[in-house]
Amino acid sequence: MNRKWVLAERPVGEFDENNFKLVETPIPEPGEGEFLIRNIWLSVDPYMRGRMNAGKSYAKPVEIGAVMEGGTVGEVIRSNHPNFKVGDIVTEQLGWQEYAVSRGELARKIDPSLAPIQTAVGVLGMPGMTAYFGTKEVMGVKEGGTIVVSAASGAVGGLVGQIARIEGAGRIVGIAGGEEKCRYCVDDLGCDESIDYRKFSKDKAAIGAALTAACPDGIDGYFDNVGGWISDAVYPLTNPFGRIAICGMISEYNLTKPEMAPRHTRQILTNRLRVTGFIVTDFWTRWHEGLEIMARWIKQGRIKYREDVIEGIENAPKALLKLFRSENFGKQLVKFGDDPTA
Amino acid sequence: MNRKWVLAERPVGEFDENNFKLVETPIPEPGEGEFLIRNIWLSVDPYMRGRMNAGKSYAKPVEIGAVMEGGTVGEVIRSNHPNFKVGDIVTEQLGWQEYAVSRGELARKIDPSLAPIQTAVGVLGMPGMTAYFGTKEVMGVKEGGTIVVSAASGAVGGLVGQIARIEGAGRIVGIAGGEEKCRYCVDDLGCDESIDYRKFSKDKAAIGAALTAACPDGIDGYFDNVGGWISDAVYPLTNPFGRIAICGMISEYNLTKPEMAPRHTRQILTNRLRVTGFIVTDFWTRWHEGLEIMARWIKQGRIKYREDVIEGIENAPKALLKLFRSENFGKQLVKFGDDPTA
Repeated sequence: MNRKWVLAERPVGEFDENNFKLVETPIPEPGEGEFLIRNIWLSVDPYMRGRMNAGKSYAKPVEIGAVMEGGTVGEVIRSNHPNFKVGDIVTEQLGWQEYAVSRGELARKIDPSLAPIQTAVGVLGMPGMTAYFGTKEVMGVKEGGTIVVSAASGAVGGLVGQIARIEGAGRIVGIAGGEEKCRYCVDDLGCDESIDYRKFSKDKAAIGAALTAACPDGIDGYFDNVGGWISDAVYPLTNPFGRIAICGMISEYNLTKPEMAPRHTRQILTNRLRVTGFIVTDFWTRWHEGLEIMARWIKQGRIKYREDVIEGIENAPKALLKLFRSENFGKQLVKFGDDPTA
Repeated sequence: MNRKWVLAERPVGEFDENNFKLVETPIPEPGEGEFLIRNIWLSVDPYMRGRMNAGKSYAKPVEIGAVMEGGTVGEVIRSNHPNFKVGDIVTEQLGWQEYAVSRGELARKIDPSLAPIQTAVGVLGMPGMTAYFGTKEVMGVKEGGTIVVSAASGAVGGLVGQIARIEGAGRIVGIAGGEEKCRYCVDDLGCDESIDYRKFSKDKAAIGAALTAACPDGIDGYFDNVGGWISDAVYPLTNPFGRIAICGMISEYNLTKPEMAPRHTRQILTNRLRVTGFIVTDFWTRWHEGLEIMARWIKQGRIKYREDVIEGIENAPKALLKLFRSENFGKQLVKFGDDPTA
C-alpha cells in the first residue's frame, strides 16, 4: 500500500498534526510513458505552511484531501518510459507520499556518485539555489561589506554566509536560535559573529544593540528568512545603499492577522535601501549554472552543510512542526525508507 | 538690510510659524573670489521638514539660529569672481534669505532665454530631476504597464506620470487631494484616472477598492511621495515583479513616533517586489543628461508643469505650511522680489 499525508483541514494560525491525515491507497500503476517511483527522501520547507492556506499567493494552495506538496528524491521501481529505467534516482516535487507515478517532464535524474542523493533537495536543490541566487543576484555582496543573515544555521541561511564570503563579503553575522546553532554558525559556517535571538524575547531595542555591536561598520546586506521583529531591528542599522533580500518570513507565516509594526519607509528612503522579494523559481532558467557552481564549491570544501533527518513517513508532520518551532538543526529531511545508494 | 528666516526651535510633531524667526542682518560684502546674489525665487520642498529635526538623516539638520535651507534662483549684483558677473542669473542652495555671498563652487548659471528662471528649482531643477531619474531609473517603466503615483499634482508627482507615459506606460493613475487637483491630473497631466484620497478619511480598504477599480490589470509601478496609509493600500495590489520607488513620505514627516501598520513583507515576498528608496543627489553625476532631456520634452510640449507662487519672503513659513497641508497646487515657490528676466 501507498501511505500518504493529505491536508485534512486548513489551520487557523498555528498548525498542528490534526491538520493532516495519513491515508493508505493502493500503489499506483504506471501507464504508457510513465514510471513508478519509491520516494526515499522528503524535503521539509517553510513554504509548506503557505500551501496549507486558502487564498492567493505565488503558488496554488494544496486542496483539502490532496497530498501535501513537497520535494522528493526516490528510486524508479517500474518503468514504461524510455528515458527512466528501474534503479534510476530521480528528484521531483512528488509530495508527502511513499509512491508516485511520474511522466518525467518535471523529474530530474540524480548521479549518486557525485553527492548523497538527498542533496538534490538540499544544498544541490531548491534551498541551495535559493541561497546561491538570493545572495549573489538578489541581495548582492559588496566587496568588504557586512552581511547579516537570519535563520543562519538553516537549509538556506547556512549557505548564505558561506556564499557571501566567497563573493567577497568582509564581515558576516548570523542570527540563529539557541547557543548550539550560534556556535555552529561561527565554528563551522565561518560567521564572524552570531546572535542568539532567543535571548532577547522579541525586544527589538535589545537585539538592535547586539547587532550594532556585531556590525561596527553598519549593515550592507541583509538576507532575510524570518521577517517580523528581527527584521525591524535590522532596518535602522543599514548603511546607505544597503540591500535587503526577502527570501522568507517564517515568523509571520502562522499569523492570522498581520502584526502591527512601524513601517520601514523612513529607513528605505533615507538609507536608499533596495528591498527585493524573490522566489527561487524566478531563476529557473539559470538552475544549471547554480548547480554547477555549488557542486564545485562543495567539492572544494568551501561550502559546508548539515542535515537533520527524521525517519519514517509517519513523522512528516512532526518534522514540519519542528521546523516552525526552530527545533531543527540544519536542512530538515524525512527519510521514508532505504537509500540503496548510501 | 538682509532679511532671513532662521530656525528658532525644533518642532515636536507638526511645525508652525513659531518655529521660525525672521531676522535682519547687514547685506554681506563679497570678498576676493566671491560674489553677492540677490535671491529672487525660493523653492519650497517637503525635505525641509526633515532638516528641522535633530538627528541622523541623509543630510545634516539646520542648526538652531541658522538660516533655513532651500534652493534659490537669484541675480548677481556685485562680483569679485572672474566667471560670475553682475546681471548673471544663478541657482544655488542659498536658503531662506534675500541676499547671500557665494564662492561659485555650487552655483550654476541659468540661461533666461531657455525657460523662466524659476524652473531651475522646479521642472529643470531638483524636483524635475527627482521625477526623471526616479521614474526612469529607480521605479522603471514596464511597457504597457500600470503606474500609480501619489501626490500626483505636485512638483515631482506632476511630472512622474508624464515621464512614465513617454517611457511607455500603458495606464497612469494619480492620487491627489481634492477634486480640482484630481481634475488637473486627468485634464492637463494625462492621467487615465485620478483618485481623491481625501474622500476616504484614511480608510485603506476603501481607497484600496478605488485603486482596484482604477487599475484593472494590477499595479506594475508605484512612485511614492507620501508613505503612510495610502501606500499600505497600494502594496497588496501590485503585480508580480512590481517596482516601488520611495521618493518621499510627506504623510510621515511630522510624526513624533512612527505609526503602527502591517508590515509589507508578505507582499514584497509573494509578489517579488523591488522597493527602492532614493535621493535625487544620488544621480548628481547624470544631472546634465536629465536637464537636457527634460528641457527637450518641455520644448516639445510633452511635459507640462504648474507653479504656485507666494509673494514676499515674509510668507516663506506659510508656504511650507501650505505644502504640508496639501493646499499648494503645483510647485510651491516664494518670490522674494523683482525678476528682471520676466
